[in-house]
Amino acid sequence: MGTIGTILLSEIAGTAMLIVLGVGVVANHALNKTGGHGGGPLMIHWGWGLAVFAGVFVAYKTGAHLNPAVTVGLLASGAAEYAPGIPVTFGTTITYFAAEMIGAILGAVIVYLAYKKHYDETPDGPTKLGTFSTAPGIRAYGWNLVTEIIATFVLVFVIIQFGNTPSGLGPLAVALLVVAIGASLGGPTGYAINPARDLGPRIAHALLPIKDKGSSDWGYAWVPVVGPVIGGILAGVASLVFF
Amino acid sequence: MGTIGTILLSEIAGTAMLIVLGVGVVANHALNKTGGHGGGPLMIHWGWGLAVFAGVFVAYKTGAHLNPAVTVGLLASGAAEYAPGIPVTFGTTITYFAAEMIGAILGAVIVYLAYKKHYDETPDGPTKLGTFSTAPGIRAYGWNLVTEIIATFVLVFVIIQFGNTPSGLGPLAVALLVVAIGASLGGPTGYAINPARDLGPRIAHALLPIKDKGSSDWGYAWVPVVGPVIGGILAGVASLVFF
Amino acid sequence: MGTIGTILLSEIAGTAMLIVLGVGVVANHALNKTGGHGGGPLMIHWGWGLAVFAGVFVAYKTGAHLNPAVTVGLLASGAAEYAPGIPVTFGTTITYFAAEMIGAILGAVIVYLAYKKHYDETPDGPTKLGTFSTAPGIRAYGWNLVTEIIATFVLVFVIIQFGNTPSGLGPLAVALLVVAIGASLGGPTGYAINPARDLGPRIAHALLPIKDKGSSDWGYAWVPVVGPVIGGILAGVASLVFF
Amino acid sequence: MGTIGTILLSEIAGTAMLIVLGVGVVANHALNKTGGHGGGPLMIHWGWGLAVFAGVFVAYKTGAHLNPAVTVGLLASGAAEYAPGIPVTFGTTITYFAAEMIGAILGAVIVYLAYKKHYDETPDGPTKLGTFSTAPGIRAYGWNLVTEIIATFVLVFVIIQFGNTPSGLGPLAVALLVVAIGASLGGPTGYAINPARDLGPRIAHALLPIKDKGSSDWGYAWVPVVGPVIGGILAGVASLVFF
Repeated sequence: MGTIGTILLSEIAGTAMLIVLGVGVVANHALNKTGGHGGGPLMIHWGWGLAVFAGVFVAYKTGAHLNPAVTVGLLASGAAEYAPGIPVTFGTTITYFAAEMIGAILGAVIVYLAYKKHYDETPDGPTKLGTFSTAPGIRAYGWNLVTEIIATFVLVFVIIQFGNTPSGLGPLAVALLVVAIGASLGGPTGYAINPARDLGPRIAHALLPIKDKGSSDWGYAWVPVVGPVIGGILAGVASLVFF
Repeated sequence: MGTIGTILLSEIAGTAMLIVLGVGVVANHALNKTGGHGGGPLMIHWGWGLAVFAGVFVAYKTGAHLNPAVTVGLLASGAAEYAPGIPVTFGTTITYFAAEMIGAILGAVIVYLAYKKHYDETPDGPTKLGTFSTAPGIRAYGWNLVTEIIATFVLVFVIIQFGNTPSGLGPLAVALLVVAIGASLGGPTGYAINPARDLGPRIAHALLPIKDKGSSDWGYAWVPVVGPVIGGILAGVASLVFF
Repeated sequence: MGTIGTILLSEIAGTAMLIVLGVGVVANHALNKTGGHGGGPLMIHWGWGLAVFAGVFVAYKTGAHLNPAVTVGLLASGAAEYAPGIPVTFGTTITYFAAEMIGAILGAVIVYLAYKKHYDETPDGPTKLGTFSTAPGIRAYGWNLVTEIIATFVLVFVIIQFGNTPSGLGPLAVALLVVAIGASLGGPTGYAINPARDLGPRIAHALLPIKDKGSSDWGYAWVPVVGPVIGGILAGVASLVFF
Repeated sequence: MGTIGTILLSEIAGTAMLIVLGVGVVANHALNKTGGHGGGPLMIHWGWGLAVFAGVFVAYKTGAHLNPAVTVGLLASGAAEYAPGIPVTFGTTITYFAAEMIGAILGAVIVYLAYKKHYDETPDGPTKLGTFSTAPGIRAYGWNLVTEIIATFVLVFVIIQFGNTPSGLGPLAVALLVVAIGASLGGPTGYAINPARDLGPRIAHALLPIKDKGSSDWGYAWVPVVGPVIGGILAGVASLVFF
């Protein structure tokens, strides 16, 4: 398989795994009659952190970006390769973006199937949308953007730092970092910190025949795309200065 | 000891360890007058994840399947060995299945002994059965099957991927994966993701002289057997395509 | 320093560290006006697990038994050394026991000092004793003994197994095992699984000038001593058969 | 870049990262309308532990003190270097202190920006201060000091011990130790265990234009500075005796 095919297969599968487990934990927490209903914020933080853990194993061959903000962060940091053997080019960059988006949509569809009856039994539309995409606790686009920029900066800056540090923890390090960001910076906006994580499931929400689903809240959709892209670029540039 | 004897001893002990700690955490959570009563879903997720952790150490010599879905997944993936020195044959396959079932029954009996007085003091029959076997939040056999297939696919697909990825985490990686699946995909059916994990304790429930135990719910018993077997086979086949 | 002195210093310090953090988490959970008041069972499980983690680092040189049940388990397994360079003899065995008990008493005194004002502000005697020593949810000495035997068997059997398995997790493996045992088998008796962990703090409770402290419940004190000793011996013998 | 510049850049960035994630988790827990509101003590313990985890990666080059109590502990232990290539001198010592304080103030400002709207929507002054700095459950300066000395002793003593023990866990070991201390010894005073962690955000609280912020509680401010310094020195000296 060529490089483009490898990126597609690997990042689609890895991002789908991330979203199956990540969107899944929110569904388990929020929908009616599930075993994890009301399990609390820490359950969600571990769920997303370990979703990244599993996703990284699946997409190991291609560096497991799983996130356009990571891809642009590496681009901005002046990296020569996205993963061993995968050069940074216009074509590979676009392929990463496309694979991340496809994987995220696919993952959200799988969660919908796994929780089908529970979506049917949960009447509230915003609750259902909240299992797919993020929403701010207090709607204020400017400040919401600031929060997403800060949280994504932390994610990408520390991930780049992992590469400069011997630790032997591999995918566990990224998982724990995501638990940390969720617990610490996830409060205001639900920590998208990944344009594909938010936009992919939102598209799935718009397309799927979910009962009484209500609005997909497209008015907010740009924030968890633009914020993470800015945060990722700033982190890439900052790591150029820092090292 | 011959190969068959080694598999039996190792997988019985490992699966018993898995079930002692896994069924144990549900007993601690659900039964009356325990220290962990009402400890929440995340306690259960960590309990099952770390149950796998301990079980994997105990059955290390034989690859620590502890789960017929893992055994069939490896079979479907075309693996030549189930563990270093243990070839894939009809005889070893059947031995793994038998050992996993015996270990699971044995483990459930041990939990009953550890929590004997608390079973006596818990009046509700379904609560007691719920410490042994899984039950769906919304009974819908088709959709319940879908959920078990998806969750087991994730388990077996990522476990096979562990073998292709340097990580150094060993048994911890499987443990964290099980925590993830519990938090994210356990909501609808209680994540059997292992035919032995569900059927073994259900048989123990049927056999043990538990006070006011009520039904063993045999009508549902096929779902957490068939679903994981299908999910495991699909994961084995998918990993052939994927790598 | 001679072998006896090394064991004393190392195991006293390590067991004190274990008890400072372990008894500490129960104090944080149970006493009035603390930050962790009512933090839930999982907080206690992590607290004890990570207490072992820290204690193992401190007593690394002498194998970090921290627990007479581990010492007797190794003795029963026919080990030649308790740690590299420390032979199994009558003298070293007694020294381990003594150091573990002294460390446990010392650790409980330190927790009392750290939480002094909160002990003063908590009126209920059994709540205060419960921060020092274990107590059963349902008092039934025979069944309580069974629970402690099973839980300690799991602890010592898997610890011995760690030594036969490459994992690279070191002290983390023991920590996670203790989290697992707490979540899964801690429900009926509060998982002493260590005679020193229970008896040492109980002696400290009897000796310290705690306000309105009430009974030290000596009637139950033998269970968390005898149960773990039996469980440890059985695990040592079983591992002889198993490997 | 010279040694002084390296320390400044590395420890400012690392301590800022620690405080962004650490102060962030308390803000997420305590402020109104956040996703993690009321998430419980264990969420806070993991948040601070993983905040250290991320901070250690960022400041890896300079040994990641992030804490004047660690710096004075190493000084008291007679270490020749603060990190590979960074000698213990008056100048490097003062530089560590300065960088730690600057980073802590900076980190608190970043959390304020991330949670800006939630600070506005939380009317209670002490709740807002509580996201920046620690406060005792029961105000009793002498006993509060004792608690901070004990907790910091545990932190610095075990960190020094990490250096004498092969474990391969790297930054994870410190993270887990901080989770342990929070769960076990954090109850009375909120575990500053780091003068910069408390004083830096308190200065930020005093300077920032936070709505209805109320007092910065300077009367208590000396306790989480003096306690950790004493605890760190005692740990350094004790490790001289212990090894």
